Parts: sequence; C-alpha cells; structure tokens
Amino acid sequence: MEAQPRTLRLVVEYDGTDFAGWQRQDGQRTVQGCLEAAFLAMTGQAVFVRGAGRTDAGVHADGQVASVTVTSRIPVLGFLRGLNTHLPSQIAVLEVADVPASFDARHSARGKIYRYQIWNHPVRSPRHARDSWHVYDPLDAHGMRAAAALLVGEHDFRAFRSSDCDRKNTVRILRRFEVRRDGVLISIDVEGTAFLRNMVRILAGTLVAVGKGKMPPDHVTSLLESGDRTQAGVTAPACGLTLVKVIY
Amino acid sequence: MEAQPRTLRLVVEYDGTDFAGWQRQDGQRTVQGCLEAAFLAMTGQAVFVRGAGRTDAGVHADGQVASVTVTSRIPVLGFLRGLNTHLPSQIAVLEVADVPASFDARHSARGKIYRYQIWNHPVRSPRHARDSWHVYDPLDAHGMRAAAALLVGEHDFRAFRSSDCDRKNTVRILRRFEVRRDGVLISIDVEGTAFLRNMVRILAGTLVAVGKGKMPPDHVTSLLESGDRTQAGVTAPACGLTLVKVIY
Repeated sequence: MEAQPRTLRLVVEYDGTDFAGWQRQDGQRTVQGCLEAAFLAMTGQAVFVRGAGRTDAGVHADGQVASVTVTSRIPVLGFLRGLNTHLPSQIAVLEVADVPASFDARHSARGKIYRYQIWNHPVRSPRHARDSWHVYDPLDAHGMRAAAALLVGEHDFRAFRSSDCDRKNTVRILRRFEVRRDGVLISIDVEGTAFLRNMVRILAGTLVAVGKGKMPPDHVTSLLESGDRTQAGVTAPACGLTLVKVIY
Repeated sequence: MEAQPRTLRLVVEYDGTDFAGWQRQDGQRTVQGCLEAAFLAMTGQAVFVRGAGRTDAGVHADGQVASVTVTSRIPVLGFLRGLNTHLPSQIAVLEVADVPASFDARHSARGKIYRYQIWNHPVRSPRHARDSWHVYDPLDAHGMRAAAALLVGEHDFRAFRSSDCDRKNTVRILRRFEVRRDGVLISIDVEGTAFLRNMVRILAGTLVAVGKGKMPPDHVTSLLESGDRTQAGVTAPACGLTLVKVIY
C-alpha cells in the first residue's frame, strides 16, 4: 500500500550569515534549498518547503515555520533526526509535527515577531558581528522608545517599505514595537500581523536616526502622513535582524 | 628626536572559531599573529604582542589582555582606531592604554575569569554553534553545582590537566566555580589565580559527566585525592570556552 500524502509543520532555526536568504535560487545556497535537499536525501522525493516568511540574505531565524507535503511513512521523530543530519550546521529543524492538510505556513500565519539588534559602542564587536548592527554614535534609547510608541497600531506604512515593494495595500498593524537597552546592546522587538518588504529594517534604521538625534521622535508621525520613503531612515543591515516567532 | 619605547596594554575581544589559537605559528592564522601584523602595518615595526593567556584554537575572548612595547608617538586613540582598521572582523581591540614598562600581560596577571557555555537541548543550535558545546542528554544543574562547590579553594588539580602539561606545581586556587542554567543554556563561570593546560575544559567535561549522572558529585573529591586524569571527564570542546577577563 502506498503512503498517503502528509503535511508537516517545521520550526527552523538558522544563522543566515552565509546564506542568500530563505528562497530557493539556482546556484545559490539558500535555507529553503538546503531543507528541500535534506528531504530529497531522506525520502527520494522532490518537495516544496514553504516558509512563513521569505527572509532576506543575512537575516536569521530563531523560529521560522515551514510547511511541506510529503509521501512517506517516516515518523516525525525520524524526520527531526534525519533532517538535522542532512542539514549544514547553520540550519537546524527544532520541531516536526503532522498537521492538517489545510495548514500553510505562509497563509495560516496570523502574525510574526522580529528582533533587531544594535551593538552601540565606539568599537565593533567580533562576537556580535554576525547578529547585530554596529552603530558607534551613542544612541538615545528614550527617544527611540518614544518614536516606536507612535508607530504602534494600524497605519499606512508606505514610507517604511523598500522601493521595489509592489503591494497595493500598505496598511499594516504593529501590535508591539519595543526598544530595550542592555548595556551597549539595544534590542528592538516588533510584532505585527504582516510586514511590507524591508519594513522592519527601515523601521530600525529610522529609530537609529532618532537615537542619533538626526530626527525628533515625532517625525515618525509625519512619515506616516506623507508616506515619503526618502524621509525615513536607512534600511538597517540584514545581519541585525532575526525572525523570532511566527504566530498561528 | 627619536621616539622612546612605550609599553601599551591592550584589551582584545575575538571570536576564536576561525583561528589556530592565540599564539603565533608559521603558516597559521592566529590572534597574536594578526595583532602583530596590524602593529607592523601601522608603525613599520615588528613587535612582540604578549597575551595574558595563550588561548587554544577555537577558544574565544571577551577581554584578553596583551602587552606590547612600541617605539612610536602615535597616541593611544590612534592605535585603537588604526589597529581595528587593520584587524580582521573576528578580532577587535577594545582598549589601548600607556602603562609602566614593568607591566607584562602574562606575569602581572593576578587571576583570570573564564566562562564555559553548554547548549543543553536534544537539537543542536545553529545560532549557538560557535560559542557553546551541544550536549543533548538532559543535565542536572543541581548536581553540577554541588560538584563545582567541592572544587572551590586551593587544591592539587593534576587530575584536571592535559596529559602534555608538564608543570611541576599542580596546586591552583579556584576562587569561584559557578553553574547557572538559563533555559537550555548552561553557563559555567570559573575564576582562578592561574590554570593548568586544558584545566577549565576538563573541569567543564567533568561537570557534564556529573550532570548526566555518570558520576556522583562527590566523585570530584576523590579525583583531587587520586590525581588520576583518566577518572575525570572528557576535555570539553574549545568552542564553548571564553576568556572573559584578566585580573591585575
């Protein structure tokens, strides 16, 4: 008797430094590509692994979620162990579960939590080089926090998206946008229903402009009104960004 | 007028993953070698950079200390900036100070603090692969703590040194030996006057044997008495070890 198709839900952690992002691309080392190769090695079948978020090159994940349909009787614990054996050290599958066929990692997602880390010190940190943006000018975390608070809620975020983002609807809901300082490390936690292209990195770049005193905190209110990308901050580097959790 | 010799004290941070350790070796990429090359590039002079501790290949440092004698009028801030420009991203000089000629990073040191990190989870962590030892069996941190407490103080630590360590005097003082668990991350903090070769890694390996239940906590007392290396734990992998601070 042939095995029936099953849908699996994966939770995936990766250090994105050495990858050309999540999405499979010919001739590039990507997270999706490595996961699909691991399934192929285990089952002999070509599968499509769909991620909740297609993270950019250099972006990390503590809890990316992916869905995949397989035709195999391998138990979930067998997949967990086998996939981790076939994956490079920079990627690990933390959980594997059987889920209803209706589960789709991208479309079923109800929200995502990202973290952006800044190393705020005159000297760069070798031990945080892979996971944070080095900003040497001292940042005023209070000002950053004030600006972040003004962005929480439902707004038109078209000033905070990459110029190549072609979404028609640019209204999004930020449920949480918090700035914490722990010594020289500043962490920005963002939770939202969905995000525009590069939105979290542009939000982080804008908070850094505020923290440097280049922009008053309430400038973000006029950014929401004008929708002018050129008046927002830079796109913060990918290395500081982590997809922490996907909410279903 | 020619510049007079000056002694500089450096505080150095590095991610040791991609280095063959601290000590200069022909044809190998080492931390000392990179620092000496940076001084040569800045001053045109070959110098000897002496480290407080010659960390092994793969061992990291948050606060290694080094001393160096230079003949140059470059101010300390100029050295700080210039050295960091000439160093690879995995090494940074955090501080540069003029000190009396009698200062010797190794011989003036009165103690060192090391940290050993363990990722205690069934699945390896890509984001902690560079800085922790992955132990999948659940560890009993209480038992590890009890064993660690028995080792604090002045003891003959010959059971806890590498077989190629040829020190005559194997009595050392552990001022502090603490085990903390923060979720799946276990941190072992060790402070002592001086350490034998691989001593911190063998202490960590022994605590892990206790944590797995392979060894009762008070077995460490008989190890101190017998001095039998073969009855202690394995040498824990270098990647989990960090030289946190040198005390003067």
